Amino acid sequence: MSNTLGKHIALTLFGESHGPQIGAVLDGMPCGIEVDEKSIAAALTRRRPSGRGETARVEQDNFRLISGVFEGYTTGEPICILIENSNVRSGDYDRTHLLARPSHADYVSHVVHKGYEDWRGGGHFSGRLTAPIVALGAICGKALEKIGVGVATHILSCGTVSDQSFDGVDYGKLDSQIHLILESNFPVLSDIQAQIEAQIEAARLNQDSIGGVIQTAVSHLPAGLGEPWFDSLDGTLANAILSIGGIKGIEFGLGFDFKSATGSSCNDEFYASPEGVRTYSNNSGGINGGYSNGMPVIFNCAVKPTPSIAREQRTIDMATGENATIKIIGRHDPAIIRRICPVVTAMTEIVICDMLKGAFSNSIFEKK
Amino acid sequence: MSNTLGKHIALTLFGESHGPQIGAVLDGMPCGIEVDEKSIAAALTRRRPSGRGETARVEQDNFRLISGVFEGYTTGEPICILIENSNVRSGDYDRTHLLARPSHADYVSHVVHKGYEDWRGGGHFSGRLTAPIVALGAICGKALEKIGVGVATHILSCGTVSDQSFDGVDYGKLDSQIHLILESNFPVLSDIQAQIEAQIEAARLNQDSIGGVIQTAVSHLPAGLGEPWFDSLDGTLANAILSIGGIKGIEFGLGFDFKSATGSSCNDEFYASPEGVRTYSNNSGGINGGYSNGMPVIFNCAVKPTPSIAREQRTIDMATGENATIKIIGRHDPAIIRRICPVVTAMTEIVICDMLKGAFSNSIFEKK
Amino acid sequence: MSNTLGKHIALTLFGESHGPQIGAVLDGMPCGIEVDEKSIAAALTRRRPSGRGETARVEQDNFRLISGVFEGYTTGEPICILIENSNVRSGDYDRTHLLARPSHADYVSHVVHKGYEDWRGGGHFSGRLTAPIVALGAICGKALEKIGVGVATHILSCGTVSDQSFDGVDYGKLDSQIHLILESNFPVLSDIQAQIEAQIEAARLNQDSIGGVIQTAVSHLPAGLGEPWFDSLDGTLANAILSIGGIKGIEFGLGFDFKSATGSSCNDEFYASPEGVRTYSNNSGGINGGYSNGMPVIFNCAVKPTPSIAREQRTIDMATGENATIKIIGRHDPAIIRRICPVVTAMTEIVICDMLKGAFSNSIFEKK
Amino acid sequence: MSNTLGKHIALTLFGESHGPQIGAVLDGMPCGIEVDEKSIAAALTRRRPSGRGETARVEQDNFRLISGVFEGYTTGEPICILIENSNVRSGDYDRTHLLARPSHADYVSHVVHKGYEDWRGGGHFSGRLTAPIVALGAICGKALEKIGVGVATHILSCGTVSDQSFDGVDYGKLDSQIHLILESNFPVLSDIQAQIEAQIEAARLNQDSIGGVIQTAVSHLPAGLGEPWFDSLDGTLANAILSIGGIKGIEFGLGFDFKSATGSSCNDEFYASPEGVRTYSNNSGGINGGYSNGMPVIFNCAVKPTPSIAREQRTIDMATGENATIKIIGRHDPAIIRRICPVVTAMTEIVICDMLKGAFSNSIFEKK
Repeated sequence: MSNTLGKHIALTLFGESHGPQIGAVLDGMPCGIEVDEKSIAAALTRRRPSGRGETARVEQDNFRLISGVFEGYTTGEPICILIENSNVRSGDYDRTHLLARPSHADYVSHVVHKGYEDWRGGGHFSGRLTAPIVALGAICGKALEKIGVGVATHILSCGTVSDQSFDGVDYGKLDSQIHLILESNFPVLSDIQAQIEAQIEAARLNQDSIGGVIQTAVSHLPAGLGEPWFDSLDGTLANAILSIGGIKGIEFGLGFDFKSATGSSCNDEFYASPEGVRTYSNNSGGINGGYSNGMPVIFNCAVKPTPSIAREQRTIDMATGENATIKIIGRHDPAIIRRICPVVTAMTEIVICDMLKGAFSNSIFEKK
Repeated sequence: MSNTLGKHIALTLFGESHGPQIGAVLDGMPCGIEVDEKSIAAALTRRRPSGRGETARVEQDNFRLISGVFEGYTTGEPICILIENSNVRSGDYDRTHLLARPSHADYVSHVVHKGYEDWRGGGHFSGRLTAPIVALGAICGKALEKIGVGVATHILSCGTVSDQSFDGVDYGKLDSQIHLILESNFPVLSDIQAQIEAQIEAARLNQDSIGGVIQTAVSHLPAGLGEPWFDSLDGTLANAILSIGGIKGIEFGLGFDFKSATGSSCNDEFYASPEGVRTYSNNSGGINGGYSNGMPVIFNCAVKPTPSIAREQRTIDMATGENATIKIIGRHDPAIIRRICPVVTAMTEIVICDMLKGAFSNSIFEKK
Repeated sequence: MSNTLGKHIALTLFGESHGPQIGAVLDGMPCGIEVDEKSIAAALTRRRPSGRGETARVEQDNFRLISGVFEGYTTGEPICILIENSNVRSGDYDRTHLLARPSHADYVSHVVHKGYEDWRGGGHFSGRLTAPIVALGAICGKALEKIGVGVATHILSCGTVSDQSFDGVDYGKLDSQIHLILESNFPVLSDIQAQIEAQIEAARLNQDSIGGVIQTAVSHLPAGLGEPWFDSLDGTLANAILSIGGIKGIEFGLGFDFKSATGSSCNDEFYASPEGVRTYSNNSGGINGGYSNGMPVIFNCAVKPTPSIAREQRTIDMATGENATIKIIGRHDPAIIRRICPVVTAMTEIVICDMLKGAFSNSIFEKK
Repeated sequence: MSNTLGKHIALTLFGESHGPQIGAVLDGMPCGIEVDEKSIAAALTRRRPSGRGETARVEQDNFRLISGVFEGYTTGEPICILIENSNVRSGDYDRTHLLARPSHADYVSHVVHKGYEDWRGGGHFSGRLTAPIVALGAICGKALEKIGVGVATHILSCGTVSDQSFDGVDYGKLDSQIHLILESNFPVLSDIQAQIEAQIEAARLNQDSIGGVIQTAVSHLPAGLGEPWFDSLDGTLANAILSIGGIKGIEFGLGFDFKSATGSSCNDEFYASPEGVRTYSNNSGGINGGYSNGMPVIFNCAVKPTPSIAREQRTIDMATGENATIKIIGRHDPAIIRRICPVVTAMTEIVICDMLKGAFSNSIFEKK
């Protein structure tokens, strides 16, 4: 179903950018998970515009858990979260809503919804809808933390600046890297925040926007999480993450660099360790045959430049079907790459919880 | 469900590499689609080893449609296809089946199935299982052809050799390219077959294997095929295609090259044409906001080198849990890049039929 | 998924009896359906306690549509409705919440949720959760009305009083009957309201409760709505309707009276009429082989007596696991049979919309 | 999906009455379940016509497990079973296939499949398709037996003859009753076989058919099996079982007899026993709030008279749309009530395995 994701733990998303509230329902979470409103707020803060070169619409993200949580713990029933839409300036959009913004969803939304769509601020397609995903991801993150599984996402490259990669073979090092990202207000492993911000600011001054690549790691997954053939671990992650606006590609392990690899250079040979079966290298990104193999799961996502730019662009007027030009006035990020990291982390946390429950039932979350 | 894919038209896969038969059920196909056994056989031929540097196991792929087809047309009921497993040499595997082949699914299968798995020839994880997918994809392909939609996949790069890309803006040129691939016995757009075969043969002589990138185009999809947020056109394709062994990444349009793009250089501006709304460029790969936008849908997949290589590799003995070495003796391709093209095409055809039915019901297949 | 129902139009339910709000999301409704808040309010009124012998908790049912509706019409995106929980007297339950009420869900909820459940007023299992179902059913009902399909439910029997049946062969008569029920504040076809109310009042005075049978009709469905084998029209309705607390059986057409029938007496013979193929009798309840056959769809549901009675009952204390007695103090209906009728109607409307969309796509709802 | 049932263990059905083979795939069964071909054959024998007054088409039911079973145990991968269609006399149907048999699926199938349907012998709608269900149910039955869960179905009434009921409160007595049914070749608890056979023979001589009611018990289910609201234990069973041709109603516990019950007479009061929480009575049929409550699950199904009778009946000619008469010549049972019992048992076994896996994961099947 189009707005529901997951088989054992299901996320249902609703709301529009300029409606009274947006929200989501997370159904199937095991009971007895401690719900910490501070960690939800912290995750929402990581997603919020910083004010530094990013969209001037600052959402307060006041949220309310209206079901599924009782006396500080999940009950096992559906968790509904509502987030207020404040600071809405619909006026920015009024003049242009029948001009399809290039590389946005306006045109396809108009085709599908035949003019009935709530077009204000991108409506249901707005990046604003990622806020409830991030909030519910934080609850899943707590459930995962309890059983030792960590998830984090950092900027691997933005414009011409590159970060180092997550360590795919040494859990000790990876744990430190994940911890660093989760504590930081700018998701990079190296000291490159200033360089990235400079690139973004340069794009903004140039009435332009830039893209990049982000990288996600999942630590300490048990081997055997996945499904044969369909609904594999990689396929399920890809389906979830490609639903995030702006993500146009996903690769696991070596990914597209396999094109210049050979079997002898890139096969991940096994060895026995005190912690269990391990591989010397991790070009597979922790996944074989659609299942986790016990090594860190590591994948990269391509992020396109924000399509909303201040320059005049050619387009069509959807009311008349004729050619037109558009100059987008609203408040927009020249790069979403920082803010998209916690969204991909949240989606990953939700998918991993869903698949763990599918494979092992709620009982896996009761482990110490 | 792990071996069923699709919501409106569902593919269910069964069988093992060395069982008596493998097969699949395709449920939900509209009635009245002509079933042409020759086109099924042709698709299976495109997937079969050529004998030139590829696995010496030549499967005859004798197939039988045992349900859902009556007097040459689909009935609308589930179509079950069975394919004989002949030319099985289980002996090749007997000695080594408790040695996990690196970068294969043997280890995760053993973890999940606790020793009960049919380990012969990779069992249910074998690439052999792609044969029924290709066969049923050919039926979907006929349904799509009837309504003017074409699907084809070619080798974009292999080792150091690169092919030209599908044309993403001119349907006339793209139609010719798709036609060329479907008529050819080696899926490339340029005259590079000999160069690619040379690279593969070099890898084989070196007891090694190589990877590459393949590219798929879908032509003439109506705008508006997809879903908001989840089960998007790109997410659904990614989930299906990542289930194919050996595929480790997928990117739409510019994909990972968005990292060095700017909004002003890569946004796809709209214009009105006699054929409908079009974009000047197609960096989005024909997809905005999870929906087709009426332009060609174009995506690339990363293919890893075949993990079965003849060199000795380090591994573990799954019976004892101890370190060991393995030298793989069976018959294996040093590159699956040619044979994987019709598999990705078939998966794409199945997904597109499924999504078209979901969006427009069976009636869309009655056009023309 | 446990709190989501439907494949093409999906209902997701959330909330607890004594939480701040309860609600539901309806995802997949076609765009362009007029949303009439008055008809939603009217449906909620039909479900609300009358004050005559029914529970003294009178809910105002203030509702708010927070997404999916724009300028009075559905947008095609998920519709979220929230209903305030006011008039909550949790004190009634405090003393007894670890005493499992007989024939209630308290015990199973405690087993499943391990003490984390929100036990106040039955929590998520409360009949209160049927309010959002009724509200969203009213939106579906409008969509059906637009294409000429009617749904209504009446009390067929309660205690010793019986009503006449819906007419299963004459659409003219059935249309009048459905109209009568939808306009009435007490859902019976005959002049038996006073007799039924007398029976209910007698039960109340006797600190007891009574059950009954209700009957639902769906008019003017096209032939061919359903699925072969699984997810049949009857099976899908049964799954949805048995989820309503208090319903313990469902029968289609002659149902359990088939036990004393013969093929020659109960087969529904076909004939050609100007309106299409019809049957002389309708013992099949409008369904053959899991599909609608063009005749009225008619089914009955068994409703058990309200399990909450004021008499002392034997039970267990879930805290100690020991035997105990309980005397239920809260405000409860001695019969839910009147109030359950609009709930079954709403569930039926939702299921029928879902299946119509599945079979014919959104385009069926665009018919005049 | 129309021909796939189940979320965690999924049954996919394919084939037509007069095709070469029929079959089914069972996906998701845990690995390590012993597969006993004799118990499969025994189940198929219970479903087969006895020759005593039943259809003269005697199917040998030669079956072959072509995947998912290795060295006598399930592997955890999809199990495909194929059953040969022998003894096919299509000639019986040739003359009449455009005359819709009253109360059969011929008409709706023709509407849905627009003339492309395989009409021979009812095609995909034939009761013949229940054979693979019974075969795979036998595998599920073995898995359940291993963990102490028993399932059996008997004839509760046929024509004017009634059997005693399953014992709903005493597991010792119920276990004996289930054992008796599973060992018997005629599923009744009392000595009434001859009376039932006499009624059926009388119907046959009268060119007529008769219906009845059957009753199913599931023993020793753990409390808490089910889901809140949707996909409840009762709803899921109902959806599965109503898919069987000829079943027109289902009731749990007291079912439709709740109409003349009062809360004080029918509430099931709890008590603590050494075996766990029990209820004094079991009018709820072992289900509260959609979950098993630890008591025996007991439900009844209404079975309509076989619609194929030898008398002339009025119908329409689907080729011309005109009125016509039909005299059905094929070989048909005047009562399916005996043969339908193992089918309902098999469906129940499949559903219970599916739900157990969903609630507790594969690990529940490893007990003992």
